[in-house]
Amino acid sequence: MSSFKLRIPASSANIGPGFDVLGIGLNMYLEIAVKFDKLVDTSADKHNVKLSYEGNGAAGVPLESERNLVTATALYVMRCNGMENFPDGTLVHVTNPIPLGRGLGSSGAAIVGGVMLGNEIAGLKLSKERMLDYCLLIERHPDNIAAAMLGGFVGSYLNQLTAEETAAKSVPLETILPKAGTADSSLERRAPPVAIGQYLKYNWNNKIRCVTIIPEFEVKTDDSRAVLPTSYQKEDIVFNLQRLAVLTTALTLAKVDHKLIYESMKDKIHQPYRALLIPGLETVLAEVTPESNPGLCGICLSGAGPTILCLATENFEEIANTVVDIFSKKNVKCLWEVLDLAYEGATVEY
Amino acid sequence: MSSFKLRIPASSANIGPGFDVLGIGLNMYLEIAVKFDKLVDTSADKHNVKLSYEGNGAAGVPLESERNLVTATALYVMRCNGMENFPDGTLVHVTNPIPLGRGLGSSGAAIVGGVMLGNEIAGLKLSKERMLDYCLLIERHPDNIAAAMLGGFVGSYLNQLTAEETAAKSVPLETILPKAGTADSSLERRAPPVAIGQYLKYNWNNKIRCVTIIPEFEVKTDDSRAVLPTSYQKEDIVFNLQRLAVLTTALTLAKVDHKLIYESMKDKIHQPYRALLIPGLETVLAEVTPESNPGLCGICLSGAGPTILCLATENFEEIANTVVDIFSKKNVKCLWEVLDLAYEGATVEY
Repeated sequence: MSSFKLRIPASSANIGPGFDVLGIGLNMYLEIAVKFDKLVDTSADKHNVKLSYEGNGAAGVPLESERNLVTATALYVMRCNGMENFPDGTLVHVTNPIPLGRGLGSSGAAIVGGVMLGNEIAGLKLSKERMLDYCLLIERHPDNIAAAMLGGFVGSYLNQLTAEETAAKSVPLETILPKAGTADSSLERRAPPVAIGQYLKYNWNNKIRCVTIIPEFEVKTDDSRAVLPTSYQKEDIVFNLQRLAVLTTALTLAKVDHKLIYESMKDKIHQPYRALLIPGLETVLAEVTPESNPGLCGICLSGAGPTILCLATENFEEIANTVVDIFSKKNVKCLWEVLDLAYEGATVEY
Repeated sequence: MSSFKLRIPASSANIGPGFDVLGIGLNMYLEIAVKFDKLVDTSADKHNVKLSYEGNGAAGVPLESERNLVTATALYVMRCNGMENFPDGTLVHVTNPIPLGRGLGSSGAAIVGGVMLGNEIAGLKLSKERMLDYCLLIERHPDNIAAAMLGGFVGSYLNQLTAEETAAKSVPLETILPKAGTADSSLERRAPPVAIGQYLKYNWNNKIRCVTIIPEFEVKTDDSRAVLPTSYQKEDIVFNLQRLAVLTTALTLAKVDHKLIYESMKDKIHQPYRALLIPGLETVLAEVTPESNPGLCGICLSGAGPTILCLATENFEEIANTVVDIFSKKNVKCLWEVLDLAYEGATVEY
C-alpha cells in the first residue's frame, strides 16, 4: 500500500437563514498524511496505528486510535466492512489549521477525514455520496459534513428513515468500537443505510469572498444547542423560509446584488439566541451593513459561532477591522482571514 | 384613452416546503377588458364605472365599483395618486376562469388586476415592482401576488418595515374608500412605502408541467389560517428549511430528478394541519408517489387548498385520475387540468 494524503476543507454551516441546511467549504485544509513502514513498530496502539498531530488542538487531541476522532471514525468504517485493524506500520500525521470550537467545521472535517481514511485503508472505493452516509451516522448535521466532503456551496437534507434504519443510525461510535474486539459478526450490518442525505451543490459567484473573523474563545456545541428554543413562532419561521428561498439563488447571480444578499442572509432561528453566548454578536449584526461597509454583501454566524462570516466583494480588511473593533470593545480578541470556497471538497492524493 | 386588456395568471402558492414563500404563475388567465364610451351613462356607479363579469363567481361577485375587489383596488391606486374616480363612460368587463376559494390565486389575480387597472386609468406608468408594493398593502402574502404579477416560478419575502411604514400598511382598503369622498389630502401619503417585498425569479425546467386537481368545495382563507398552530418544533422547521433549500434549484436542473424533487416537495408546516379541512389530502400525499405514478415528480397542496398540485413530466391523465379517485372515495368530485407556467406574468395589451 502506497502513501497518500487527504485534504479536507474547513466549512461554515448555518449560512444566514439556512440553519442546519446550507454549508460552504472553505480553502483552509485539514491534512491527513498516511505512510506505511513495516520497520516501525506500531503495536503500542491497540489498532496498529502511530498517530502524530500538529496545529490547532495539538495540546489536547488524544493520539490513541480508539479515542482520536479521525482514526476512531476510520476504524468504524473499516469494521463495518470486515477489517479489524490498521495494517502493521501505519503512520498517520494530521496537520490541522482549523481552529477548534469556533464554528469552522473542525470536527466535521475530522469525521470526513476519518471516513476517507477508512475507505482508503480498507480499499473500499466508496463514492463520496456513500461516504457521506457513514459521516452522517456519526454526526447527524449534514451541513458541515456535506460542505467538507463535496466542497463549494451545498444544501442538504436528511431523508426520512424507516424505523429499522433509525435503529441502525442510533449506534454511537463509542459503543461500536469497544465491542469490536469481540469480532461481532453483526458489525457489517451496522453499515449505514444507503442515501441518508440528499445534497445539492449550488453555483457561487466567485467574486464573493469569505472574510472570517474568529474570536478567541470557544463555543461548546452542547451549549450552543441548549440555548435554542424548542419551538418557534410562525412569523419567525416564515421570515427564514422567505430568505432562504432567495439566498441560494442570489449568491449565484452573475451580478452581485449586495442588498438582496444582505437582506436574505438574515436569520431568526438561531442567531438571536446565540447572541447570549457571544458578546458582541448583536452589535456586529446590527451595525455592520452594506451601507456602513461598502463591499459587504452578507453577514452571519459561521456554524454555531463564535466566528463571524462576512461575504464581500471588496474592502475585506476594512470589513474585518470593523468586526474586530466591535469585539475588542467587549474585550474579545480576534484573528481574521479572507478565504475562498474550496470548490473541490475533500481530496486524496497518492 | 384607448381600450386595453389586462391578463393576469392564476397561481399556486406555498409550493411544497415554501410556505408563504414560493409561488408559480399558471397559464389560466383572469381577463379585464377596458373600453371607454362617452355615450354610455356610467353615473349609476358612484365612481363612474360600468362593471360586467362572466365566469367563475359570476353569481356572487359584487358589481359596484367600491365593493368589487378589482375596481376597489384600482380606485385605491388612483386615489393614492390624486385621481378620484374613473373617467366618464369607463366600461370594465371581467372574464374569470379561475375557480374561487380553491387555492389557485383568484383573489391574488383580482388584486394584481386591480392595481394594474388603476395604473392604466391614472396613467401612472408604474413598474411591476412598484405595483407589487400596492398589492402588498392590500394582501400581505407575497407568494400568489408576486407569481401573478411577475409570472414563472418566484420566491419572495417582505422586507422589515419601520414602525412608520407598518402604520401606513395597516390601512385596510375598506377604510380608505368611504373616506375618499372627503377629498382627504392625506390620501397621497397613504401610497405604500417603496420596496415592501423582494422577489426572485427562478428558472424552471419546462418539461415539468402542472396537473391541478380541483375538488368541488371551497376552503375559506380564514379557516385555513385558523387551523395552523402558532408555534412549531425545531425538527419540523429544519425539515422544511432543508427541503426548501434544495427545491428551488432542483426544479431548474436540466435533467429532471424525480426523486430529488419529490422528497424536497414535502412539508411539515401547513399540509399536515390542513388535512383536517380537506378529506382525502392525507391519503393523496401518502399514496401518490413517483413509484406508484411514474412521471410524477412532486405533489403538494396549491395555496391553502383544496386544489392538489402535481408536478409531472408524463402520464398527466393517469396522475390526475389517481388523485380524482382518492377524492371520489370521500364523495368529493373534482375537475382537473394540465397547466404550464405563465412565464410572462401579468400583461397589458392596447
